Amino acid sequence: MIESLNKAFCALPGVGNKTAQRFVYHLLERNREGGMSLAKALVDVMEHVKHCTSCRTLSEKTLCHICASEVRDASQLCVVETPTNIHAIEQSGVYKGKYFVLSGYLSPIDGIGASELGLDELEQKLTNQNIKEIILATNATVEGEVTAHYIASMAKQFDIQITRIAHGIPIGGELEYTDINTIAHALLGRKKYD
Amino acid sequence: MIESLNKAFCALPGVGNKTAQRFVYHLLERNREGGMSLAKALVDVMEHVKHCTSCRTLSEKTLCHICASEVRDASQLCVVETPTNIHAIEQSGVYKGKYFVLSGYLSPIDGIGASELGLDELEQKLTNQNIKEIILATNATVEGEVTAHYIASMAKQFDIQITRIAHGIPIGGELEYTDINTIAHALLGRKKYD
Repeated sequence: MIESLNKAFCALPGVGNKTAQRFVYHLLERNREGGMSLAKALVDVMEHVKHCTSCRTLSEKTLCHICASEVRDASQLCVVETPTNIHAIEQSGVYKGKYFVLSGYLSPIDGIGASELGLDELEQKLTNQNIKEIILATNATVEGEVTAHYIASMAKQFDIQITRIAHGIPIGGELEYTDINTIAHALLGRKKYD
Repeated sequence: MIESLNKAFCALPGVGNKTAQRFVYHLLERNREGGMSLAKALVDVMEHVKHCTSCRTLSEKTLCHICASEVRDASQLCVVETPTNIHAIEQSGVYKGKYFVLSGYLSPIDGIGASELGLDELEQKLTNQNIKEIILATNATVEGEVTAHYIASMAKQFDIQITRIAHGIPIGGELEYTDINTIAHALLGRKKYD
């Protein structure tokens, strides 16, 4: 019984046998109540959380609170790889538009092509809605760049502005400790100082 | 709803908000089934796992499989701090006796005295059963040492051998990378070479 809980914990990312064991014994010895509420919360979420029909993020309702909001600027659409990325951008507090969540990134080798990614839905959105700017906020990885590139070429058929979030030295970062790729991007992407 | 699952995951040791978020999104996006079986396993274990009435380890039955075993040597009793320690010793494969699990270590400042630790039960065991050797396998920390010392002085009233597991350089360890305390223990605890 304890063994099968151990195994079930190993389904979590980054959790191996030792960590799972620590979880199990901690809950059993000090926090059985916490274990029960974790179980309850898990069932609730696994059963009730679906994808927002508009932006595809995870949501309990058909429309997530951002898509349902009338305050958010519907003319801006920020494309991200995962729902967690929305959370990160929201915390920065500078974006007031809407989102579209891909199912990760283009990876033909894993069988993830344009339709698996949700690009058909994105294309429909660009066709039907009055969107003026699409912001490509996929990750700064090779896969993220390829995905951004692919979306950009698809979006060119529409009369909208296509932008990509800036890449460069992170705030608080020192040149000495920044990797050469980032420095190269920061130099090539330099802007007029005013 | 997602927020409360996040919070419930934070009850696990070493899991903060970011890790909890990663768990939640991973389960939702890739492994809802895994999430449901985790919930089921949690309820099973939290409801059914109790303490062995003889050695106090965690067990589904009144007597754990080691206490119930007739093959294990009942004249040896190994005292450990937690049920996980039993698991570790069992994996080493060299011990064939029985165990007794303390509830951690002596810590008067946290209100953990002799009776909270289960030392009364241990004393009864030593009185009533035919035990020839008690092996003190508490951790090699200050608290573990104090606990071992306390148990040793209690056990002196009985006619039994009292031993402590050896401390020294770990197997595969190099002197250069071993801390001075361990080296000091290894030197003071040196044995005749044969």
